[in-house]
Amino acid sequence: MPLNEPGNEPTAMHRLLHADSVAVIGASEDRGKFGGRLIYNLLHHGFEGTVYPINPKRDTILGHKAYADISAVPAPPDVAAVAVPAKGLIAALEGCITAGVKVAIVITGQLAETGEDGAKLQDEAVAMARAAGMRILGPNCLGAFNNPAGVCLSPSVTMSVEKLRPGRVGVASQSGALQTAMFIRAHDAGIGFSSAITLGNQADLELSDGFEYLVDDPDTDAILLYVEGLKDFERFKAAAKRAREKGKPVVAVKAGRTDAGAAMANSHTASLTGSYEAFAALCESLGIVVTDQPDTAVFCADALARWGAPKAGGVAVASGSGGAAALAADAIDESSFHAARISAPAIRHLAEHLPIKKETANVDFGAYFRAFDPDVMSETLNAFADDPDVGALLMIMTPQPGMESLSAAMRRIGTEKGVPALLCNKAGTMVRDHVEAEALATGYPVYASLDDCYRVLEALMAYKRLQEAADDGGDAALDTGAVDTAAGHLSAGLLTEPEAKSLLAAAGVPVTRELMAAGADAAVTAARDVGFPVVLKGVARGLIHKSDAGAVKLNLTDVAAVRSAYADIETAIAENAPDADFQGCLVTEMATGGVAEAFVGASWDPQHGPGVLVGAGGVFVEVLKDVKLAAAPVSRAKARQMIEGLQTFPLFDGARGRAKADVDALADIVHRVSLLADHLGPRLGELDINPVIVRAQVQGALAVDARAVWHDADM
Amino acid sequence: MPLNEPGNEPTAMHRLLHADSVAVIGASEDRGKFGGRLIYNLLHHGFEGTVYPINPKRDTILGHKAYADISAVPAPPDVAAVAVPAKGLIAALEGCITAGVKVAIVITGQLAETGEDGAKLQDEAVAMARAAGMRILGPNCLGAFNNPAGVCLSPSVTMSVEKLRPGRVGVASQSGALQTAMFIRAHDAGIGFSSAITLGNQADLELSDGFEYLVDDPDTDAILLYVEGLKDFERFKAAAKRAREKGKPVVAVKAGRTDAGAAMANSHTASLTGSYEAFAALCESLGIVVTDQPDTAVFCADALARWGAPKAGGVAVASGSGGAAALAADAIDESSFHAARISAPAIRHLAEHLPIKKETANVDFGAYFRAFDPDVMSETLNAFADDPDVGALLMIMTPQPGMESLSAAMRRIGTEKGVPALLCNKAGTMVRDHVEAEALATGYPVYASLDDCYRVLEALMAYKRLQEAADDGGDAALDTGAVDTAAGHLSAGLLTEPEAKSLLAAAGVPVTRELMAAGADAAVTAARDVGFPVVLKGVARGLIHKSDAGAVKLNLTDVAAVRSAYADIETAIAENAPDADFQGCLVTEMATGGVAEAFVGASWDPQHGPGVLVGAGGVFVEVLKDVKLAAAPVSRAKARQMIEGLQTFPLFDGARGRAKADVDALADIVHRVSLLADHLGPRLGELDINPVIVRAQVQGALAVDARAVWHDADM
Repeated sequence: MPLNEPGNEPTAMHRLLHADSVAVIGASEDRGKFGGRLIYNLLHHGFEGTVYPINPKRDTILGHKAYADISAVPAPPDVAAVAVPAKGLIAALEGCITAGVKVAIVITGQLAETGEDGAKLQDEAVAMARAAGMRILGPNCLGAFNNPAGVCLSPSVTMSVEKLRPGRVGVASQSGALQTAMFIRAHDAGIGFSSAITLGNQADLELSDGFEYLVDDPDTDAILLYVEGLKDFERFKAAAKRAREKGKPVVAVKAGRTDAGAAMANSHTASLTGSYEAFAALCESLGIVVTDQPDTAVFCADALARWGAPKAGGVAVASGSGGAAALAADAIDESSFHAARISAPAIRHLAEHLPIKKETANVDFGAYFRAFDPDVMSETLNAFADDPDVGALLMIMTPQPGMESLSAAMRRIGTEKGVPALLCNKAGTMVRDHVEAEALATGYPVYASLDDCYRVLEALMAYKRLQEAADDGGDAALDTGAVDTAAGHLSAGLLTEPEAKSLLAAAGVPVTRELMAAGADAAVTAARDVGFPVVLKGVARGLIHKSDAGAVKLNLTDVAAVRSAYADIETAIAENAPDADFQGCLVTEMATGGVAEAFVGASWDPQHGPGVLVGAGGVFVEVLKDVKLAAAPVSRAKARQMIEGLQTFPLFDGARGRAKADVDALADIVHRVSLLADHLGPRLGELDINPVIVRAQVQGALAVDARAVWHDADM
Repeated sequence: MPLNEPGNEPTAMHRLLHADSVAVIGASEDRGKFGGRLIYNLLHHGFEGTVYPINPKRDTILGHKAYADISAVPAPPDVAAVAVPAKGLIAALEGCITAGVKVAIVITGQLAETGEDGAKLQDEAVAMARAAGMRILGPNCLGAFNNPAGVCLSPSVTMSVEKLRPGRVGVASQSGALQTAMFIRAHDAGIGFSSAITLGNQADLELSDGFEYLVDDPDTDAILLYVEGLKDFERFKAAAKRAREKGKPVVAVKAGRTDAGAAMANSHTASLTGSYEAFAALCESLGIVVTDQPDTAVFCADALARWGAPKAGGVAVASGSGGAAALAADAIDESSFHAARISAPAIRHLAEHLPIKKETANVDFGAYFRAFDPDVMSETLNAFADDPDVGALLMIMTPQPGMESLSAAMRRIGTEKGVPALLCNKAGTMVRDHVEAEALATGYPVYASLDDCYRVLEALMAYKRLQEAADDGGDAALDTGAVDTAAGHLSAGLLTEPEAKSLLAAAGVPVTRELMAAGADAAVTAARDVGFPVVLKGVARGLIHKSDAGAVKLNLTDVAAVRSAYADIETAIAENAPDADFQGCLVTEMATGGVAEAFVGASWDPQHGPGVLVGAGGVFVEVLKDVKLAAAPVSRAKARQMIEGLQTFPLFDGARGRAKADVDALADIVHRVSLLADHLGPRLGELDINPVIVRAQVQGALAVDARAVWHDADM
């Protein structure tokens, strides 16, 4: 359902960002105080609605009639801003409720982020607001602003800038301080925002409330999210899908890539930071570009708002320095984009102006016959922009002549031709005073760091790739009836191998030929049916490491061997795992003939949902941790890309004269496991298939062993 | 020999940077011209010697008597600056020679960097100068300056700054434009230089001339090098060793990390860019810190000049944003340094001011009970600085209160306590106008990017590590007599296995028990002496892939098998490698019992000298390219570090319940091979030992197969 569109009840976030009346509790004329800055910022940025300063000691504040208490205001305010110390929070919110406030912005900190006492107080505040139907932004946040609507509800010192720059990027951020740092860096670089929302502790309104608002906001062309942890990934997914449908690029920055970062984020806005890899995989599946530095993320979102997906994957570089060109060539060679391979017209142009022949788009204007000639530089840039392989241009400005006309030519390309044209100022104040100032005045960004430029280029190219690779996961149907039937027999805990394999078989994953046998006689019969040689594996609920417990016997070639193996396994389990509940032995074919072994797995992450994994088996997955994770489900094509992305892919691809493995068959297993994980949701806690034997091309792949952890109900 | 010290003949670089008289060919009052800028910059920065403007059309230039021709000057100038077009270069240099110029700075481009014609002209110019005893800086360079001496001989527009900032970093750069870009970025960040030298095409004076000068320059505390390719690595090594002896940190940036970068560098200042990995390995062995971005490299060198090696490997982070703290924690967790683990006094201090318990030094001042209290912030920073595990502090300034006193506290720590204290401005103009300006005024750097801060921290910690890990390679003596005897029998080309192994054995590397046998009877005798089971390998000069040619027979357990194998090998070589010169078979023990296989190699790089390699053997080195390279020689301890640094190290270290391998024995082989490579120099073009069988701990390691490429004489 469209969320902020005409005819629908406005969301809380919409009410907040389009407030007609605002009460500021603790309003003051002292900008050293939160309440002072908040009311100043609101009026300074042209709020046209009604303002109710709440301050018992003053008659007016900044020319507006002040009220001693919020209960005294003449009409219920849409929004109240609350910046009182934690001990006064409950009383302040009671006042808001009495006054009929619809949304309270709670700046107050020292709550859930500081421990148990703060969390209790925060819970109490939220329970009270919920009971009264009042929504809360925060606590521990820095408010929000809607630039075109003239609603600036933030106590941040950064909001004291003369004027908020116009811009088409909307931000929702869990960190207030970080958002304001992003804001000011963007402002300095010529970039403005449509709306910006800080969520703080997300006690009530959460990141997805902001995300949903921005998806439907007509003033927002690209969305930037700073995420510490997701509260409701289904809601996040739905918003992301709507953003994709509307063609709005989304960029996410996430803290908690490492354990240390996760621990810090946790102590910060009281959110549990989830697994970074799972978050990145979820974003990949939703077409969201993930980057790792918040202020560069602003540049990425701005570039995507300006240009969307580039027309090609090549990048052209121009500079006034051969050294800079060489270093840029290094950086580009190590990136996911490539140095543009120019075609005939551009090659001819360069041949006229350069003493050496060039077929890649990386030029040093200082090496031209007519070094730094403004007309020639402009011609070169235009020739690059028109080239079919050039998706973006990067100009590295060094302290040399002609930079003014050069930057003007770049701006024309960026605005009139719609080709991403990035200006990097490596000349500091030499350029800042004229070129940079002019670019800023025209609202065109100038980047101060090549790192930032490369990240922006990565983001543009990632968005292009994600657009092209949109994957709904399914080109095969899962037999959900069969899966549900198999699942119906399971109970919570570590599944036995036959149970885990029953799920796989129901999902259409090829498993070893096998029969369950209770007793040595049954095992012999089963072995004859399966066909010698066979493998016997002890099946016992609660038995974790079968091999270590001596419960696996390989390559049994006759009846005597089967009988003896059965007896040995029964004894070994009794000795090594006395608490395990022995049910008999699984008699399986002895799977041979693989050219490679793989690992395929599924996982459930409470913050990010179902995932699927693939890697080379054995020592490779265990020692090198060489696995790819994707959010489930994935299509066969996407599964194949995951396999091709493994460091160990050459093992599947005929390295050192091996036969090429049946990667399609392995991809099909990954695909089916992903459908299974998606269908079963939180019930399938973990699933490991290890090994999958992958045979030579067109000979298939086979799940040889499997383990799984089952949960009873939706979590 | 000390190079610029009293009593010695001054070097050309010394003459240039301490010039008493300078002729400027093409001097002008038009700063749009090279000659105009050069003379302006020289006078603007207070040159106190004699200036001879050369310009036939003017009587005076900037108040100095002008001369129509350099031959007309009254006394031989120490230095002449030449910025004429390429076609006038020879005539201009002839004039310089006639006038008795000692060093000519040639700004002129369009020479060797543009192809064959330019290279010819450049060679002619150099030959002429050499014949006359005149030295040349350049061509295609941007001159040089010596800040304390007031000698600024550069036409760069960046030299028009009001005043060169004082500084203790000296620069030698092959790229002129890049040097000036580095200069201005450093200038903007509050960093100045002692001397800066651009080398351009290095037709005569080369990077090491600059390097040597800076090593001996009393005004230089740290050295920064921008390198495209080394002309003489022995000279470079000698200068680096002298820098280390004098305790001067050296930072190098190199273009050409990738093929694309190498190609660009090549077209730039006409140098052949060598293998990046070999350069990095050489620098590692010389204690030189390598980094990848030129302007960050300035910050690194400046930080090393200020602080040298940090006292500990931990980093403390403070910020005004929990989000920034979380992202910094991520970045630090992925770096080579660690988040400082603070001890009792700092823990107690934090417990007083923070609502949550902390034992790592990463704080958000916004979360303090007394948020942003100047005294408390200063106390925290001092507690961190005094902590034994804190080697450096990083303050991330966000747009929040109290940043002035905070930055002052950081500066006091950085200057008075000598603890590296880095200020990062993530608040843009909010901070630039006061905090940053104040820091600049006091000559204390402020970084605008966290990327830069992390690189500076990496450089500080790398320098500390390199200081501690100084490795002269040798704690074992090579029996050079034995090696020379073995080498005396070799001739150029691909060596046979026994030849390659003879070098190894002479170097003390354990090789398989083996005997050479010409004929089946001899093979049988040899097999009895070696002991069954044996391996037979065909030995034939010119045979490259023994196994593929069917010339290796494993696990021969009796006389009949040996006879049959010998015959098969002889036939196979005749069929598969008819041009190879069959000499018989090598009869070796069948080496078994390894817990891991390794690859050990040596290589000779004409630009960087001898190197040694180690990796896990078989599929790991061939598919994963998981090898470590170091400049030879390396000590056993360093060899062990290389092995421990392998991605596949767990294979040697008991992964998955394997036995631990005898890594000491493998390290000894790496060490001995490195001594061999160092001793043999360019004669040993390549050496591969593959596999080395590594047995369980204290059971040794064994070279099973080896190949080598031999060159006759020094290259």
